[in-house]
Amino acid sequence: MIFLPVGDSRETEQTIRDDCHLLQEFIVFAVLYTAISVVYRLLLTGAQKRYFEKLSIYCDRYAEQIPVTFVLGFYVTLVVNRWWNQFVNLPWPDRLMFLISSSVHGSDQHGRLLRRTLMRYVNLTSLLIFRSVSTAVYKRFPTMDHVVEAGFMTTDERKLFDHLKSPHLKYWVPFIWFGNLATKARNEGRIRDSVDLQSLMTEMNRYRSWCSLLFGYDWVGIPLVYTQVVTLAVYTFFFACLIGRQFLDPSKGYAGHDLDLYIPIFTLLQFFFYAGWLKVAEQLINPFGEDDDDFETNWCIDRNLQVSLLAVDEMHMSLPKMKKDIYWD
Amino acid sequence: MIFLPVGDSRETEQTIRDDCHLLQEFIVFAVLYTAISVVYRLLLTGAQKRYFEKLSIYCDRYAEQIPVTFVLGFYVTLVVNRWWNQFVNLPWPDRLMFLISSSVHGSDQHGRLLRRTLMRYVNLTSLLIFRSVSTAVYKRFPTMDHVVEAGFMTTDERKLFDHLKSPHLKYWVPFIWFGNLATKARNEGRIRDSVDLQSLMTEMNRYRSWCSLLFGYDWVGIPLVYTQVVTLAVYTFFFACLIGRQFLDPSKGYAGHDLDLYIPIFTLLQFFFYAGWLKVAEQLINPFGEDDDDFETNWCIDRNLQVSLLAVDEMHMSLPKMKKDIYWD
Amino acid sequence: MIFLPVGDSRETEQTIRDDCHLLQEFIVFAVLYTAISVVYRLLLTGAQKRYFEKLSIYCDRYAEQIPVTFVLGFYVTLVVNRWWNQFVNLPWPDRLMFLISSSVHGSDQHGRLLRRTLMRYVNLTSLLIFRSVSTAVYKRFPTMDHVVEAGFMTTDERKLFDHLKSPHLKYWVPFIWFGNLATKARNEGRIRDSVDLQSLMTEMNRYRSWCSLLFGYDWVGIPLVYTQVVTLAVYTFFFACLIGRQFLDPSKGYAGHDLDLYIPIFTLLQFFFYAGWLKVAEQLINPFGEDDDDFETNWCIDRNLQVSLLAVDEMHMSLPKMKKDIYWD
Amino acid sequence: MIFLPVGDSRETEQTIRDDCHLLQEFIVFAVLYTAISVVYRLLLTGAQKRYFEKLSIYCDRYAEQIPVTFVLGFYVTLVVNRWWNQFVNLPWPDRLMFLISSSVHGSDQHGRLLRRTLMRYVNLTSLLIFRSVSTAVYKRFPTMDHVVEAGFMTTDERKLFDHLKSPHLKYWVPFIWFGNLATKARNEGRIRDSVDLQSLMTEMNRYRSWCSLLFGYDWVGIPLVYTQVVTLAVYTFFFACLIGRQFLDPSKGYAGHDLDLYIPIFTLLQFFFYAGWLKVAEQLINPFGEDDDDFETNWCIDRNLQVSLLAVDEMHMSLPKMKKDIYWD
Amino acid sequence: MIFLPVGDSRETEQTIRDDCHLLQEFIVFAVLYTAISVVYRLLLTGAQKRYFEKLSIYCDRYAEQIPVTFVLGFYVTLVVNRWWNQFVNLPWPDRLMFLISSSVHGSDQHGRLLRRTLMRYVNLTSLLIFRSVSTAVYKRFPTMDHVVEAGFMTTDERKLFDHLKSPHLKYWVPFIWFGNLATKARNEGRIRDSVDLQSLMTEMNRYRSWCSLLFGYDWVGIPLVYTQVVTLAVYTFFFACLIGRQFLDPSKGYAGHDLDLYIPIFTLLQFFFYAGWLKVAEQLINPFGEDDDDFETNWCIDRNLQVSLLAVDEMHMSLPKMKKDIYWD
Repeated sequence: MIFLPVGDSRETEQTIRDDCHLLQEFIVFAVLYTAISVVYRLLLTGAQKRYFEKLSIYCDRYAEQIPVTFVLGFYVTLVVNRWWNQFVNLPWPDRLMFLISSSVHGSDQHGRLLRRTLMRYVNLTSLLIFRSVSTAVYKRFPTMDHVVEAGFMTTDERKLFDHLKSPHLKYWVPFIWFGNLATKARNEGRIRDSVDLQSLMTEMNRYRSWCSLLFGYDWVGIPLVYTQVVTLAVYTFFFACLIGRQFLDPSKGYAGHDLDLYIPIFTLLQFFFYAGWLKVAEQLINPFGEDDDDFETNWCIDRNLQVSLLAVDEMHMSLPKMKKDIYWD
Repeated sequence: MIFLPVGDSRETEQTIRDDCHLLQEFIVFAVLYTAISVVYRLLLTGAQKRYFEKLSIYCDRYAEQIPVTFVLGFYVTLVVNRWWNQFVNLPWPDRLMFLISSSVHGSDQHGRLLRRTLMRYVNLTSLLIFRSVSTAVYKRFPTMDHVVEAGFMTTDERKLFDHLKSPHLKYWVPFIWFGNLATKARNEGRIRDSVDLQSLMTEMNRYRSWCSLLFGYDWVGIPLVYTQVVTLAVYTFFFACLIGRQFLDPSKGYAGHDLDLYIPIFTLLQFFFYAGWLKVAEQLINPFGEDDDDFETNWCIDRNLQVSLLAVDEMHMSLPKMKKDIYWD
Repeated sequence: MIFLPVGDSRETEQTIRDDCHLLQEFIVFAVLYTAISVVYRLLLTGAQKRYFEKLSIYCDRYAEQIPVTFVLGFYVTLVVNRWWNQFVNLPWPDRLMFLISSSVHGSDQHGRLLRRTLMRYVNLTSLLIFRSVSTAVYKRFPTMDHVVEAGFMTTDERKLFDHLKSPHLKYWVPFIWFGNLATKARNEGRIRDSVDLQSLMTEMNRYRSWCSLLFGYDWVGIPLVYTQVVTLAVYTFFFACLIGRQFLDPSKGYAGHDLDLYIPIFTLLQFFFYAGWLKVAEQLINPFGEDDDDFETNWCIDRNLQVSLLAVDEMHMSLPKMKKDIYWD
Repeated sequence: MIFLPVGDSRETEQTIRDDCHLLQEFIVFAVLYTAISVVYRLLLTGAQKRYFEKLSIYCDRYAEQIPVTFVLGFYVTLVVNRWWNQFVNLPWPDRLMFLISSSVHGSDQHGRLLRRTLMRYVNLTSLLIFRSVSTAVYKRFPTMDHVVEAGFMTTDERKLFDHLKSPHLKYWVPFIWFGNLATKARNEGRIRDSVDLQSLMTEMNRYRSWCSLLFGYDWVGIPLVYTQVVTLAVYTFFFACLIGRQFLDPSKGYAGHDLDLYIPIFTLLQFFFYAGWLKVAEQLINPFGEDDDDFETNWCIDRNLQVSLLAVDEMHMSLPKMKKDIYWD
Repeated sequence: MIFLPVGDSRETEQTIRDDCHLLQEFIVFAVLYTAISVVYRLLLTGAQKRYFEKLSIYCDRYAEQIPVTFVLGFYVTLVVNRWWNQFVNLPWPDRLMFLISSSVHGSDQHGRLLRRTLMRYVNLTSLLIFRSVSTAVYKRFPTMDHVVEAGFMTTDERKLFDHLKSPHLKYWVPFIWFGNLATKARNEGRIRDSVDLQSLMTEMNRYRSWCSLLFGYDWVGIPLVYTQVVTLAVYTFFFACLIGRQFLDPSKGYAGHDLDLYIPIFTLLQFFFYAGWLKVAEQLINPFGEDDDDFETNWCIDRNLQVSLLAVDEMHMSLPKMKKDIYWD
């Protein structure tokens, strides 16, 4: 995505999709506008035309009073901030794999098992949260069986997990296992002392806080009324424009209607403008969906498991031979 | 709420309630508007009509001058930020139960008692704060007797608590007990060393800071004048609209009054729009009430106690058997 | 203030005071408006009336150009943020008393003296800052003698404090004493090890940072020009309204002057609206004054001393007997 | 750049370039405006002129409705915040070189090698990220061979790096090496204890978080639709101005067209104004390009390597002789 | 500045200076306005007057379109935030002197020398940064000789400093010395253990981060184009007002020109208003200059050196005799 031009193509693709969506709405708008225009020009009788002209002027007057820009400005700022905070709080296990690789000792099988299991608990914690938060992840792991099959959980763990009686969600369970296992490793001398242990614990707590913040963002969204109010304002504006921005018969001498251009270029641009801005908000308000432009959580899950097992197992204490660098003396 | 469609139904329900509330206000507005309209059209004499028409134009002119959008924009931004900060600072004992489960050793009865008591003090600290902050919680625990009955406090603790002479609130008392008990556990060797102990202490201090921040949000709210100013602006606007947005007799030729539509569609939409926005603020300004859309603090209290006792007692040092994961080699 | 309805009454009281203040200004505005109205209607000759009418239209036109809403919006947002940050950074000794109570050992007289003295230094540090920051506190403690009398300082400490030669403020002195005393306690074994000691030190440094942030807010305020600019804008607007919002003789046919209502209802509401908003800012810009609605710093000082001495002395290692809670098994 | 007036000259240079860019666009705008003006004045027939005049008035009316200021205001605020956060999160190795120099002991060759290698891994971590993020750095280091040649990596390290099989980016590898090497140093006694080690680890984790935040800013940009919407709004406005702000024949008596100044001074100023503001955003939206005004990442990379090797090797334990300062007693 | 009314007098003085500056600009504006007015009224012939009147109306129309308020609002918010962040990040050595006084032991000459030297390095670090950032400090210390003379550096240190070959700035050198010296003190047993040492190191790193943040604010300012755009907007507005707000001959019947007041009271107020707001920004954009209202960095430097040496030397382990406080029992 980064070293290759792939990144660009992905971005282009996304832009195309968004533009497609916008284009659909735009076509609907243009067709409706044209239909009304045709009816006005060709079908209405004289008196009906006069009535329509008054209606058009009335709509235009109110269209200008709707504070679309301002409302969109405040709303989009709120949505963009939430979206960015969610991105920044995606849980990455890199800090933990760094500490586990260097603080949990032993290259024998037990040591490897310890580090891999700790790392698996970390990944399992975030997977359980992601299942709640992201539709894409939920579709991939609809039941705990899928979680076990994918290798995030062993069957023994599954049994213990199911065995726990609680009316509440149990996504915190692997997190406690992590603490117990780390403590056990310390008692066995695999983790040298309390300083190393607490360093791991602190980091795990930080990881869990990221997870629970994501959960919080999902649980308590922007108040629905706010979104409704903004959408209502924008669509009311478009509706008012459909009638109010018609070119009226210049010969009737209505103020600001001296010209019949047939194509309402500025109104169409304004449509693109406001609909595009609203699209920004819609696209960002739930970044954990299945759209192309949402966060690729399933990719994250795979990357995190693969990379973190690699880091704590194969790379544990593997070091290139130290050599003098080229600036030595 | 998450794995089940329950979450959706709750959200729908809330939306319905809000819409109900909005609907009531909307009906009042529509009825008043209709009443004025009927009086103007049917009851007034010619001269009275002329006077009313002037009044209407006067009101309309000033309605447009009221900067409702702007004021609501700034105000709602402030309210939404406060509300979100309160949500983010709800005290969750998960970080502490993680540390207590792994740092306070001993599977014997004394060890279990230690961990459970520490955990209870944590929950008691937040319960005392919640009683001050949330009406729903206060109703459930109107006296300290209810706190004792619900198992958050023993009778011995109650006595010691009552025995303390202080003219000030005493919600910090279980917090000090926590410190004393942890220190005692360290002296007995149940907590291994100062590093483990200070890790617990730091976490408890963080927990308490969340509590006191909630208390602070409750204690010092948005200045009342601010809220009054905003509400005044919005309702003045609606009042001005009731008269100023009447359809005047088109035959009199008042500017912008060429058309009599009977139903003031844009004014009604504007009402929905501004009243809805104000509703967002009203709903969020005190999130600790008893409404359906407030934070479910009573549920939190139950969840926290249940889950945290489970984590530090039944789950203490319980670990699934370590097995090689499916990616091993 | 919280468990009792007192809180409510306090809030009501404050609102009443604010409203009083607003009311006074409102009455001045209304009287001036009426006076001008009377002069215009009764005292002026025909030519003078014509001149006044032109003046009124001129004023009205410019009144609308003054961007009061916008300026107030930006300014009030700034002021509210500063005010809230000051509230959030009020120094509370709870975190420190928690650590001192559990980390400084010994129930004998020397141990008690140690803990009480440490705690006193903490309170003294914030008292010295509060004296600089808050007029209310400064009035209560105009000289160091008052500080000594109130028991925050002993006479020996006073001597040492005065003895230190420095051209700069010396509020940091008790803070250094705290460090020295804690180190001494560590050397005597009253604080067990460096981990406990550094935990105390870190917390004390945090406490001092709160203090110095308050000091900073006091030292460097919102640039005076900013406040002046906003006030100027608002009062210019009111002044322009006094003349520009007069009802002119409808028979003269000035645009927008078809109606003589005598009472300029919308202008009066606008006055309430803008003056109220400005009041929000004025009330919050210096929250350490002596008004009812300012932070009750003197109350804080008393509460903090009383509660913190209680926590580190009487409550030191006092623990209720541990009993099984009602959910045991 | 700082002690010398060079800084000023650089700033002047940048301003000149920006002004150049602006100037080009300005000339295009002015030429188009003049062309249209000439066509209108000299080439059009009477009827065509009348039509153009109506078109001009139409365009002018809509130009005023485009909320350019507002949209630019919100957008530029967002862009400036992102840009500043990227600057603040540039990874500087100063904190790490400070700790490595003082915590990794031994002035012999092995000790020097240890410190230099650790420091090199730190620099390598950020270099790999910079290659992904900054075009300028990518051009300088198009392949890993260039990284090896520049002395950031030895050939042995290169081999091990290439040997690792992973479908994902491997910029975290030197970061794991750092952890392993630091642990090895601790086992050998070169790092004294866990406290020193964890201090290093924490700092390295902080460094990596800066790196990954930069990566995140690059990976997930401001939604493209947002940028398009803003640019569309501004250029639509300019387009409407080209026609709408023409001076029409004063003899025709169009409202607001009493004067023919030939040069539309205010429109030109408005162009400078809006185009300049948009330029601010364009200049800041990707601060890791190759423009003069972007962050000088290549300079950073060189400075960081040079300074950090100096600090941990030549300066290790080198201390000036302690002498009494001039204020002694 | 705080216990004395001095603070008030300083604030008054600053206000006076600002007002002076504003006054100058105001007088220039008023004189120009008067000159144009006189020319229009007395010197122009009839046809010229007609032409000027059209010009004036033209200017007035565009003056109203310039969104001065909005642009100033966004800009001033940005500037105020930067300015406040710079104030908050001024480096104060209080946290470090607190730790050094209590963690670096020994009342003998070597101990004193150690603490004083450490403290001097802290102050030297910030001094080197301040020299880059603040013109006032740079004037006071134009060369390193002045730094040595003022006692921040010894001649030995100067030599070692100069001896270091680096093409980059060397302000980080005393910071490395600090680390080396602290490590040496630990090896000698003057600092007891790694916990105490790392506590010092962390604090020193925090201090340096403050310094480098200040440096960053100086290095990368608000994009110049932004400032230019805002200034251009404001001065264009004033220029348009000079012509557009002239009182035109009422007898000509131009709309809104029924009255000749000679003194354009609202325009003058608007001038004060906008120029004042711009002044806020200009005053805050570089707070490290030599103006009266800039941060008094030279005072800070003196205060910090004096106070910190006092705290770590004279006050080291000096404690008032512990006595029972007046609330004992």
